[in-house]
Amino acid sequence: MDALQAQITEQGNKVRSLKSSNADKEAIAAEVATLQALKAELAALTVNDPNAAPVKGGDKKKDDKKKDDKKKDTGLTIKTPKGTKDYSPQEMAIREKIFSTIISVFKKHGAVTIETPVFELKEILTGKYGEDSKLIYDLEDQGGEKCALRYDLTVPFARFLAMNGKDYQNMKRYHIAKVYRRDQPAMTKGRMREFFQCDFDVAGTYDAMIPDSEVLRVLVECLTDLGLGDFTIKINHRKILDGIFEVCGVPTDKIRTISSAVDKLDKLPWVDVRKEMTDEKGLDPAVADMIGEYVQLKGGAELLERLTTDARLSANQSAMQGLQDMKLLFQYMDALDVTRFTSFDMSLARGLDYYTGLIYEAVLEGSAPPTLANGERVRATVRQGTDELDESTVGVGSIAAGGRYDGLVGMFSGTNKKGQPNLVIPCVGVSIGVERVFSIMLQKQKNQQIKANATEVYVVGLGGVSIGDRLKICKELWDAGIKAEFTYKLKPRTQSQWDACDKDMIPLAVIVGGDEIEKGLVKIKDMRTKDESQKGGIEYPRADMVAELKKRLQQL
Amino acid sequence: MDALQAQITEQGNKVRSLKSSNADKEAIAAEVATLQALKAELAALTVNDPNAAPVKGGDKKKDDKKKDDKKKDTGLTIKTPKGTKDYSPQEMAIREKIFSTIISVFKKHGAVTIETPVFELKEILTGKYGEDSKLIYDLEDQGGEKCALRYDLTVPFARFLAMNGKDYQNMKRYHIAKVYRRDQPAMTKGRMREFFQCDFDVAGTYDAMIPDSEVLRVLVECLTDLGLGDFTIKINHRKILDGIFEVCGVPTDKIRTISSAVDKLDKLPWVDVRKEMTDEKGLDPAVADMIGEYVQLKGGAELLERLTTDARLSANQSAMQGLQDMKLLFQYMDALDVTRFTSFDMSLARGLDYYTGLIYEAVLEGSAPPTLANGERVRATVRQGTDELDESTVGVGSIAAGGRYDGLVGMFSGTNKKGQPNLVIPCVGVSIGVERVFSIMLQKQKNQQIKANATEVYVVGLGGVSIGDRLKICKELWDAGIKAEFTYKLKPRTQSQWDACDKDMIPLAVIVGGDEIEKGLVKIKDMRTKDESQKGGIEYPRADMVAELKKRLQQL
Repeated sequence: MDALQAQITEQGNKVRSLKSSNADKEAIAAEVATLQALKAELAALTVNDPNAAPVKGGDKKKDDKKKDDKKKDTGLTIKTPKGTKDYSPQEMAIREKIFSTIISVFKKHGAVTIETPVFELKEILTGKYGEDSKLIYDLEDQGGEKCALRYDLTVPFARFLAMNGKDYQNMKRYHIAKVYRRDQPAMTKGRMREFFQCDFDVAGTYDAMIPDSEVLRVLVECLTDLGLGDFTIKINHRKILDGIFEVCGVPTDKIRTISSAVDKLDKLPWVDVRKEMTDEKGLDPAVADMIGEYVQLKGGAELLERLTTDARLSANQSAMQGLQDMKLLFQYMDALDVTRFTSFDMSLARGLDYYTGLIYEAVLEGSAPPTLANGERVRATVRQGTDELDESTVGVGSIAAGGRYDGLVGMFSGTNKKGQPNLVIPCVGVSIGVERVFSIMLQKQKNQQIKANATEVYVVGLGGVSIGDRLKICKELWDAGIKAEFTYKLKPRTQSQWDACDKDMIPLAVIVGGDEIEKGLVKIKDMRTKDESQKGGIEYPRADMVAELKKRLQQL
Repeated sequence: MDALQAQITEQGNKVRSLKSSNADKEAIAAEVATLQALKAELAALTVNDPNAAPVKGGDKKKDDKKKDDKKKDTGLTIKTPKGTKDYSPQEMAIREKIFSTIISVFKKHGAVTIETPVFELKEILTGKYGEDSKLIYDLEDQGGEKCALRYDLTVPFARFLAMNGKDYQNMKRYHIAKVYRRDQPAMTKGRMREFFQCDFDVAGTYDAMIPDSEVLRVLVECLTDLGLGDFTIKINHRKILDGIFEVCGVPTDKIRTISSAVDKLDKLPWVDVRKEMTDEKGLDPAVADMIGEYVQLKGGAELLERLTTDARLSANQSAMQGLQDMKLLFQYMDALDVTRFTSFDMSLARGLDYYTGLIYEAVLEGSAPPTLANGERVRATVRQGTDELDESTVGVGSIAAGGRYDGLVGMFSGTNKKGQPNLVIPCVGVSIGVERVFSIMLQKQKNQQIKANATEVYVVGLGGVSIGDRLKICKELWDAGIKAEFTYKLKPRTQSQWDACDKDMIPLAVIVGGDEIEKGLVKIKDMRTKDESQKGGIEYPRADMVAELKKRLQQL
């Protein structure tokens, strides 16, 4: 957070200096926009601060210092472990809304869910995450099996399919659950050690690109329904990229590393990426230039057309396979009204080795990185893990990503005498960055009170009404399925009950005093109205209470 | 499982021997009932077998051996860790139904939810679980803090309250999440190392017994809505028990151990419990006898009356406090129509030390243990952990338990100069044994197919219809919010599409061939009807498709 704060200070100075030197208006506006973006980022990160107190309904800021490392005189440190946090009821309300929105879409497309243990045998996870394997959380060896907390949801899914392949040769499954990475937590980067992933995958052997197009449709529906604003889904194909690298003359052993350099084009200008290829990775500059001609291209079906007629690519088998796939995909995306959300972007490469076909990454518009005065863009501040689920590289503003991985299940199935996997289940899937979505939603709600409870009616007792009478009214309401609360005091003050309604944003009150009970009446008050004439509520016969409340609740 | 199988064999032999000796009909019937209960238990446990394959929609039995320890020639063992299991889509469908039923009740009563990390600092958990602390799962010390997987949800809740006490002095919270116990897993006892707990607690300082009565009401609503059949909630009060032990002359240092002996009265006859008190625990037989006079009592308000006028108890401060509480409770339970589900049972003691007031335990009727021929009852086969959440002893057939614990939060708050806790937040709560509920529900569903997906409409393509046409129809349905699927094949066989409808229990089909597309028509077929005249579906203009489907879906 300090680094970001320093950036903000620096950027602020720059704006002031430009203004005082009467610089070009547009130049000033650009720097101000950058400053605002940095500030917004800081605000979002503060909200996500793992050591911050749980956010309550939009009220005053908390004194973080005081919450941190509460060492009481018991000698006990009262905090959550490093890189983890509690979620307050208000945060949970937002989280549940996000999950239910996404799950509705998944179910609309026929998906089912499975649950796997939070830890796996260590050997299942070994060798799946390359460099990042050091981030795996091991359980203490207390005698017995070596286990480790799951690192993502994709490997457990592949393990599940390999174990139950005969029963689940094809399956549309979603899984929303926590995963664990023993990374250095960094509040400024939104990097947590425990965070949610949200995966939707289609497993099974089908005709080319049909499930892939439905996965993209699912992604479009999710992002639309979440209401995050405009977005673009960058799409590309591993086989086209491989073909490009081949025809440009990249040595086979350099393809992976050159691919990962290409993937940085969303954060760095071409000149820097080229430099990485030639200086750091020892690529022939002529080869790099030829790659540059391809990977800076982006567009739609017309780009596909252009590439298909490209002399070099059309002579390359891998490229042509990929281009044929893309042709089908565009056709299916058109039928599903998905094309307009996509950009065929040759610079998208994705980091993970296991992708074998289509790859994609959704980026929120307006979240593109602001350009600093020196021409560099503000670097990605959100690390893949937290946002990106089972992906190893993420662009700025990335909100979801995925692709086709046809070989992963085979890694668990063992091989036959010919060295072929015993079981091949091709898969295509997408991971939605729910932690990122959560940050955005929380930021949007920041100045609004969040209703964490579902209570519809508060039973307010005035003078002369017994606790028994209030309990009986609540019983009637609960029996009728009405969500109701009352105060657990024998002789509550009236004001404290109005306060409870306000605090919990409860829309309706049933008001009873000794008089009302005697006469078989209740008063019903709309707590949101400022209409003074209704101040004391409107009287109804007790027998009509439930019907009247239900009528009013339907109108809410 | 072997032990249970042996019991079944033995009991079978007994039945046969009784029958061949022409024994009394009633005696035979009793033994047959015992045999059937044992068999049902075995069936339920098989279903819960952590090493068994995930249950699919009621189809044939799996060969467990084959699933177990799949060691492929990769040398990789493809299984879940000991004591854990995957949940299949069908199992998840049942689980979600249980959770949503319970959560609806919690929300009806104004509860909110929080989320805490799956692991806590080790020192938070230390000293909270007595003997059972050895079952805590430690994370490997990879440099940094010592952490351990949560053992229950109560201690994390108390830690949360102690950390955020100023903001959450009062709170109605529920939490449904997995907890971890490194116990020897035992399939025959339904004992898992990873299992769900489901807790509802009310924290805050209120007038006596009001929140307690709402917790009981919540429990009644949950068990009723789950439709598990008749149940009884045994209730008792720790202060009454303490008073009884005092007036009977139990030495202070023996109170806890004598209390835990009393708690076994649901599983053992008094004579055995008395023996444990006198022989094992060295209690004066006269004292034991006096205890026996009290703890074998059960009843309702009349028992309360009788105890209140008991000469010894009415002279004891602790007992009188407890009896006064119970008097209020009966009054409130009457108002909430809860009394008829309860039994004031003096033998209920509950194992956990931290209870300070009202205690309760819900037992399903018809799940009482069968009595064996030697007069002993079949022992509890379900261990506290799996069913019972944060309780340390559980009776047979127990489905939920809880009580008041006013001191736990103070354990985390540190103490002031006078040795008093800095923060006291009294709590009362209940844990619903969702794993047990799950076993029962699964058993009920066993011979029925379970619909794991939510799909309402399957789009069936006949000859001459293109994949593009099918995609466009699906798009229309998804746009209209209709849950729809289609097959990912370019030229699907018709029969395979009917089969997909059947397998996934999809109620409606939209059928299109080349002819229909040309004429702007679709056919809609109710897949559940056996009406031959509707075999091919009924024709509608394409423009009416969505409206007609929505109409039919509403009637489902």
